[in-house]
Amino acid sequence: MEKTETEIQNRGLTLNRLEAFSDGVFAIAITLLILELKIPNQDDLLRYGGLKAYLIHLWPSYFAYVFSFFVIGVYWANHHYLSQFFVRTNHYFSMLTILFLMSMAFLPFPTALLGSFISDEAHRGTAISFYIFGGSLFPAVTWNLMWRYGSYHKQLIDPLLKDSFISRLRRLYSFSLIFITSLLVLSFFFPVISFLIVIALNLFFLKAPQKPEYDQKNE
Amino acid sequence: MEKTETEIQNRGLTLNRLEAFSDGVFAIAITLLILELKIPNQDDLLRYGGLKAYLIHLWPSYFAYVFSFFVIGVYWANHHYLSQFFVRTNHYFSMLTILFLMSMAFLPFPTALLGSFISDEAHRGTAISFYIFGGSLFPAVTWNLMWRYGSYHKQLIDPLLKDSFISRLRRLYSFSLIFITSLLVLSFFFPVISFLIVIALNLFFLKAPQKPEYDQKNE
Amino acid sequence: MEKTETEIQNRGLTLNRLEAFSDGVFAIAITLLILELKIPNQDDLLRYGGLKAYLIHLWPSYFAYVFSFFVIGVYWANHHYLSQFFVRTNHYFSMLTILFLMSMAFLPFPTALLGSFISDEAHRGTAISFYIFGGSLFPAVTWNLMWRYGSYHKQLIDPLLKDSFISRLRRLYSFSLIFITSLLVLSFFFPVISFLIVIALNLFFLKAPQKPEYDQKNE
Amino acid sequence: MEKTETEIQNRGLTLNRLEAFSDGVFAIAITLLILELKIPNQDDLLRYGGLKAYLIHLWPSYFAYVFSFFVIGVYWANHHYLSQFFVRTNHYFSMLTILFLMSMAFLPFPTALLGSFISDEAHRGTAISFYIFGGSLFPAVTWNLMWRYGSYHKQLIDPLLKDSFISRLRRLYSFSLIFITSLLVLSFFFPVISFLIVIALNLFFLKAPQKPEYDQKNE
Repeated sequence: MEKTETEIQNRGLTLNRLEAFSDGVFAIAITLLILELKIPNQDDLLRYGGLKAYLIHLWPSYFAYVFSFFVIGVYWANHHYLSQFFVRTNHYFSMLTILFLMSMAFLPFPTALLGSFISDEAHRGTAISFYIFGGSLFPAVTWNLMWRYGSYHKQLIDPLLKDSFISRLRRLYSFSLIFITSLLVLSFFFPVISFLIVIALNLFFLKAPQKPEYDQKNE
Repeated sequence: MEKTETEIQNRGLTLNRLEAFSDGVFAIAITLLILELKIPNQDDLLRYGGLKAYLIHLWPSYFAYVFSFFVIGVYWANHHYLSQFFVRTNHYFSMLTILFLMSMAFLPFPTALLGSFISDEAHRGTAISFYIFGGSLFPAVTWNLMWRYGSYHKQLIDPLLKDSFISRLRRLYSFSLIFITSLLVLSFFFPVISFLIVIALNLFFLKAPQKPEYDQKNE
Repeated sequence: MEKTETEIQNRGLTLNRLEAFSDGVFAIAITLLILELKIPNQDDLLRYGGLKAYLIHLWPSYFAYVFSFFVIGVYWANHHYLSQFFVRTNHYFSMLTILFLMSMAFLPFPTALLGSFISDEAHRGTAISFYIFGGSLFPAVTWNLMWRYGSYHKQLIDPLLKDSFISRLRRLYSFSLIFITSLLVLSFFFPVISFLIVIALNLFFLKAPQKPEYDQKNE
Repeated sequence: MEKTETEIQNRGLTLNRLEAFSDGVFAIAITLLILELKIPNQDDLLRYGGLKAYLIHLWPSYFAYVFSFFVIGVYWANHHYLSQFFVRTNHYFSMLTILFLMSMAFLPFPTALLGSFISDEAHRGTAISFYIFGGSLFPAVTWNLMWRYGSYHKQLIDPLLKDSFISRLRRLYSFSLIFITSLLVLSFFFPVISFLIVIALNLFFLKAPQKPEYDQKNE
């Protein structure tokens, strides 16, 4: 019943391939964001009064672009961080990862909406609520699913990882989820304030994640 | 006539590179699906009565997006699963893989059609039949070709893989192919029913694939 | 002056990274081809008389899609094949590879032109000549540059590779280049015939490349 | 306190994953450039007098395409070159890398602007200044940040790298930055001259980067 070297290698490859696939989706989603920025046609130039005015007028799109770039970038770094705890994978975890990646690949759409409508008073609220729903809550939900499934009875993660550390991460991610849900509700009434808090939340995640703690690892 | 270590490494690299290339196409195709979702212009907003109504009205596109995301995701996981049995590759298998990848890279087109026309009674049937043809039958055909070619006389796969297991996979994949063909024919008459069965079929493939069986592997 | 293990590893990594980058561009270019196929709007449906007629009418685009998919796929397989002979790289070879990758990344444009205009008698000739120029001659030129530079005095390739084999490849690639140039000229007068020969040429490259020959490798 | 083998491997993997992610973004950004080239519709054909005239008229777009392809390609090669000096990474360096990658992923936008407006006398200046700002200065700033952060007290780079060599690179990159800033200012008055110097600067970076110098490495 002992594992052969080949099986171990295969297993590692499998985990590597899941990470490589995830990195591919991260890299493509983050790069596709640029397609939100549109080249003006002659009508646009007339409407805004020249190319310079048009480019200045695009500031909501630049803002949405930069913000979503960092949202995906921070999730990438955290995925990177989280995956160091995994020592194996299985089919259902792959499916959950695909669900999470869907939330990343979806981001160009709410980003483009935000860029188009954040300066349009009539639709600003809708664009912000949709962004918090599709670009903040959706990733947070699927992220929680990944970590809860993977860390459940340490079925997929390093058994030497401290229980207290695992719970701490779980609480942190759950708290994020509840917090974003509240912000979504808040956005129906005060969209701008709500979105400013979303930005602050993301700035918080720019800082380095918690140092992992292991049980007597080097013993 | 013995293989040098370098040759073995090269061979492995070759198989790895085929998988990495496949993963790249999977990751891009799955991420490009988002381009189906279009930002509304002023005319769209007027027609639907505001951004909120427009975003709600997009439900067929969300549905098509999520469904195709899982179709590609499930194929990715199965490709992942299947490639663990391969121990070498050759030029013709690479060509068959490219044919299969074409069927994956093609999916954004029938997906966008489905999202645009599933709520349009006049063209719903055509959109569904085209999806079953281009998004279900085309991948199933090329998948069968890959497995049949690779497993033929075990020319490319692990010789320790049990014959009964190889045949079981072959029957499963052939059966899928025949089933989808029937659904395509059915879709000419009852498109919605046919498509519901396609969805059920894909849900079935969400579950973990069969455990592989080897001849005395650890002996 | 002996190389340390680290240096050798770095060197290998470098070559691997060049290949991984190339594979990335191949995978993206091949997957972007699908963006050529456009979802019809209401005007298109009226003009062609419904979705079914529109989808049938798209045959030139399907054809261009499938053809370019195989052009990129075959180049990918050949790049795969060629890179097995390389044992090191340098900055100038990286630049030549980027030039070659530009010819691959360029392909979606002539492909879309071909799909749009091959059924339009007035512009068919131009679309075909442009495809042969941008989609056949441009890759062939840059491919020749890569192999000639890399194999020059065996500066980057395996020194055990037989000289006769290196020359054979060089002649084969040069011949392709001359042949495609002739087809480009021919296309100014007989575009359709010229394009049929281009297709045949690509079919020829579907077959496995030549078996490499080494000097006393296993000695 | 000694590092276990696993930790070292993890660490290496982490650096590899950062590079692989970077390569993914490079590869996608460089390949997306092609989307700048648009297929003409019937109006375009009428305006320019046929497909041949249209394709010839596109020269500014070909030029912008080729130029930006090399800008990204050269940055890729230099990133490749620079990353050989790194022996570890951390969260903040990942964030800086994401900032740098944003400048690469952004390039398709100024490129498309340049292609659309370089032949339009009224907006040429704006398009050029925007390109120098977004496509030259933005990458140069983020590149400097990466190298300065990584080489600061040699916290992330190979400790055997000669101090004089590290300073030389730092001066070279700072000089580039200052030079590009001057060109941006110049472009407000003499856009064409300024852009010609930008091109010359990029041609300069086509040549191989400096040979690294190490302290008694093989001792």
